[in-house]
Amino acid sequence: MRCEPFEADRVAELADCVFSTLPHTASMEACGALVERGCRVIDFSADYRLRDPNLYAQWYGASHSDVSHLGEAVYGLPEIYGDDIRGARLVANPGCYPTAAILGLAPLAAGDLIELRGIVVDAKSGVSGAGRTPKLAYHFPECNESTQAYAVGTHRHTPEIDQVISEIAGAPAEVVFTPHLVPMDRGIFTTMYVRPKRNFTETELLDTYRGYFGAAPFVRVTTRIPATKDSAGTNFCDVTLRVVRGQIVVLACLDNLIKGAAGTAVQNFNLMHGYPETTALL
Amino acid sequence: MRCEPFEADRVAELADCVFSTLPHTASMEACGALVERGCRVIDFSADYRLRDPNLYAQWYGASHSDVSHLGEAVYGLPEIYGDDIRGARLVANPGCYPTAAILGLAPLAAGDLIELRGIVVDAKSGVSGAGRTPKLAYHFPECNESTQAYAVGTHRHTPEIDQVISEIAGAPAEVVFTPHLVPMDRGIFTTMYVRPKRNFTETELLDTYRGYFGAAPFVRVTTRIPATKDSAGTNFCDVTLRVVRGQIVVLACLDNLIKGAAGTAVQNFNLMHGYPETTALL
Amino acid sequence: MRCEPFEADRVAELADCVFSTLPHTASMEACGALVERGCRVIDFSADYRLRDPNLYAQWYGASHSDVSHLGEAVYGLPEIYGDDIRGARLVANPGCYPTAAILGLAPLAAGDLIELRGIVVDAKSGVSGAGRTPKLAYHFPECNESTQAYAVGTHRHTPEIDQVISEIAGAPAEVVFTPHLVPMDRGIFTTMYVRPKRNFTETELLDTYRGYFGAAPFVRVTTRIPATKDSAGTNFCDVTLRVVRGQIVVLACLDNLIKGAAGTAVQNFNLMHGYPETTALL
Amino acid sequence: MRCEPFEADRVAELADCVFSTLPHTASMEACGALVERGCRVIDFSADYRLRDPNLYAQWYGASHSDVSHLGEAVYGLPEIYGDDIRGARLVANPGCYPTAAILGLAPLAAGDLIELRGIVVDAKSGVSGAGRTPKLAYHFPECNESTQAYAVGTHRHTPEIDQVISEIAGAPAEVVFTPHLVPMDRGIFTTMYVRPKRNFTETELLDTYRGYFGAAPFVRVTTRIPATKDSAGTNFCDVTLRVVRGQIVVLACLDNLIKGAAGTAVQNFNLMHGYPETTALL
Repeated sequence: MRCEPFEADRVAELADCVFSTLPHTASMEACGALVERGCRVIDFSADYRLRDPNLYAQWYGASHSDVSHLGEAVYGLPEIYGDDIRGARLVANPGCYPTAAILGLAPLAAGDLIELRGIVVDAKSGVSGAGRTPKLAYHFPECNESTQAYAVGTHRHTPEIDQVISEIAGAPAEVVFTPHLVPMDRGIFTTMYVRPKRNFTETELLDTYRGYFGAAPFVRVTTRIPATKDSAGTNFCDVTLRVVRGQIVVLACLDNLIKGAAGTAVQNFNLMHGYPETTALL
Repeated sequence: MRCEPFEADRVAELADCVFSTLPHTASMEACGALVERGCRVIDFSADYRLRDPNLYAQWYGASHSDVSHLGEAVYGLPEIYGDDIRGARLVANPGCYPTAAILGLAPLAAGDLIELRGIVVDAKSGVSGAGRTPKLAYHFPECNESTQAYAVGTHRHTPEIDQVISEIAGAPAEVVFTPHLVPMDRGIFTTMYVRPKRNFTETELLDTYRGYFGAAPFVRVTTRIPATKDSAGTNFCDVTLRVVRGQIVVLACLDNLIKGAAGTAVQNFNLMHGYPETTALL
Repeated sequence: MRCEPFEADRVAELADCVFSTLPHTASMEACGALVERGCRVIDFSADYRLRDPNLYAQWYGASHSDVSHLGEAVYGLPEIYGDDIRGARLVANPGCYPTAAILGLAPLAAGDLIELRGIVVDAKSGVSGAGRTPKLAYHFPECNESTQAYAVGTHRHTPEIDQVISEIAGAPAEVVFTPHLVPMDRGIFTTMYVRPKRNFTETELLDTYRGYFGAAPFVRVTTRIPATKDSAGTNFCDVTLRVVRGQIVVLACLDNLIKGAAGTAVQNFNLMHGYPETTALL
Repeated sequence: MRCEPFEADRVAELADCVFSTLPHTASMEACGALVERGCRVIDFSADYRLRDPNLYAQWYGASHSDVSHLGEAVYGLPEIYGDDIRGARLVANPGCYPTAAILGLAPLAAGDLIELRGIVVDAKSGVSGAGRTPKLAYHFPECNESTQAYAVGTHRHTPEIDQVISEIAGAPAEVVFTPHLVPMDRGIFTTMYVRPKRNFTETELLDTYRGYFGAAPFVRVTTRIPATKDSAGTNFCDVTLRVVRGQIVVLACLDNLIKGAAGTAVQNFNLMHGYPETTALL
């Protein structure tokens, strides 16, 4: 493969649609220019995920340099914003943690069934979620045979989850999000603890989930508890739930490298170009 | 090593103190007889952990056959019941999950600082926690490279945690307990989500923990987030906490094979026989 | 999926080609009957791999019950027996270890370049190679974080390797084969030590390999040392070599679940039915 | 712990014996100075392992800067050079790979039982053997779930093994050494292939091994095949062998962090100071 220096004009000449995998802050320098030149863009960075540039500045420590395109950006989670994605010029591909959390919480938020403050999102991720840059924390003998939480209460995926759950619910939501690193290559298992507004049975809730995701080809609502290995190497997100002592325990898992990133990007591409949503993904 | 059929008379003749590692229901057949013959017993099974035989029947599906000794059994967590353990004839060594959960919650429960209903206990355990009997779920290619929850809301360690936190708090506590299996040999990492009765700073709370565990040689209250590897092969339980959006997130970890079982049993033995608590453990 | 009792007549009515995954001894009961009824069969068991029924009896401890079809069975390694596979009625799909060993040794054996007695084949396999039946040896906490040899000098794949290398060389070959279990799901890395008949340079030998495998779409002759992860999830076998102190060290790796079993079976199916060899495999 | 800049005078004032864990080339700058000042030194680097400074220059790419002390340095493998270690001023602690290889081969070399040219040493090591500096090759998602050979024929431990086996045999030995990386924290499993001068039974050879290591407290000659997990966390080296088609297959394993480094250093310290060899190691 040959790499060339980035020139927006040259890229726009060659491509109708661009997948940008630049890091955050660098990506918004490029994406706006591409959109202006008629490219449609699917951006893997965080730059267009948060609607509020002040929130971006607060969590990412940099002011937003492309506010003019922020307004039209669509959050690229097809199960939630599929209709908007079809016509979008600029799609902000979601983070891996938010995908599992949002898919796990959306049916509850949509139905006004739960307390929106203080939802607990406890996520366990394989080490590929940390990227490919060698660091002591990801050196094999350091993280193998070990589990630990990190960035407790400070992880940048927090406001993404808040934002989307708030939009689905039509009221402000706030999650307590704790990511953990577990010694495996890939996969995210997310356990959510939610307080319902009234009592529900598991059957009722599972029906709600099945109804909500009826048309979504990549969400599997299961009765048994899924394992990350069930969805490894696929674009599926598996979801189930239990009612325990009055709380709803939602269990969701996916492959962070597929449904948590590249697979969803392809799914967005399919929607944007009128292909069947599952093209190249099943 | 030579094994002999169990005879209470013979054992009582040979031993002053017995570690019983019989499975539950079998253990209560033997332990009562040993206590009657003057042995002191440290029981690894669940048979004497729950004070209420009805609760035992409900969670273990068997009626308790040694109620006469249940009343004198002491729950063998030295950091909580150390004084009672010193003089005990019968010590119920705790389960691995309850040890991490109780040590993580005790300082909060003791100070009447928190809501006791709906405490979330999200635990991640290495596979040795499941015992040594081969089953498909623990077959290497099944559980390697995979994470999943199991026994959500139904794990038998739940009433142990409830019972001890209730006793410490002096009011009924109820946890929502979700164990998970992660692909490592040993170690438990437990993340707890607690709603305080008023706002606290992390500094205040860490001071409370340091005060509570001041004399406990095997609890390390840390400021940085611990990893299970830090305590692997040791009898330490590492604990810290964060305050996130009004909730207290407590993080505790230990080696399930040491502090979660055999190490605590030795610690109990030391207390029962007047040895320094750390003998053979540091 | 619905399972039905096996009836040769019924299967022959429904299928032109059958993949038999019955265990050895059971498979030869079924395969002969299917071939007689006009089915073409790709057999995953060891039953038709060894040409000599006495050798079969010696290594498998059972007399061969379908000698009448043994003579026409083709050893299903497409890179060696591709022409015979095209027209075969009965194909004996190779074992996972023999595939890596034979592909690593074939170019040397074909050219009469090496001593055929005492070739060392040192293989390292992931645990899925041991099958899916839970046993203590494959219980996660037993085999995780551990490496060991097993079946040293007694593994049943030994005569397969001998037989094929002998056929390629046109003279009797005999390998010293040592399999090892390493703590990973999938993958085989095989290191072979061979004594050449005269001195060769690495360049000469790599050219010989590239020539030998020129038309083989699933063998990649590399200069750098491959890792099992490079071929994981693919039907490729990666091969390279080094000359060290007068010996040739051949390094070959593949995914035991794909090129070491199912992938090669599909490759055989493609050859048998006139499809491009890579159909459904790239 | 407080670190201070290195000053030989200061160290010699404070310490009778020094463990040097400086990297090679840096270590020989310090060790000679310490010996001159009356310290006894156990050096973890490679600087004093090879008797021939030209060989050192050839394998380490640097000329030896302390040839004056090289002559008195003793190779610190207690099972081979125990008598010399007792009185040594300067001990060159062995590499992890050589320890397993030499202990596996020594009884054969001592008895003049084998061909000394072309001995195959195929070693499989956990990732801690590569040190603690993060590199892409040891990044968890790169080396987890993967096995590969490296430094084939070029690993610096090669001349150490040659040298000691030659000294034991009293004739020049030459090994073909291939190290491999397997996805575990610690442990080395070494498989050696040796051509005997005449035929031996396994029983004869095991007796030879038991005789040779009779007084060695940390070598366990076993009949069953050991696993690295058997010796993990201990100072033991487990050794057994099989005779396969006329070759002797020797299997040796140990924990590279204990018997492969720090444990042997303590063993050397014990010998040098007249303590029982097992002090602090059992």
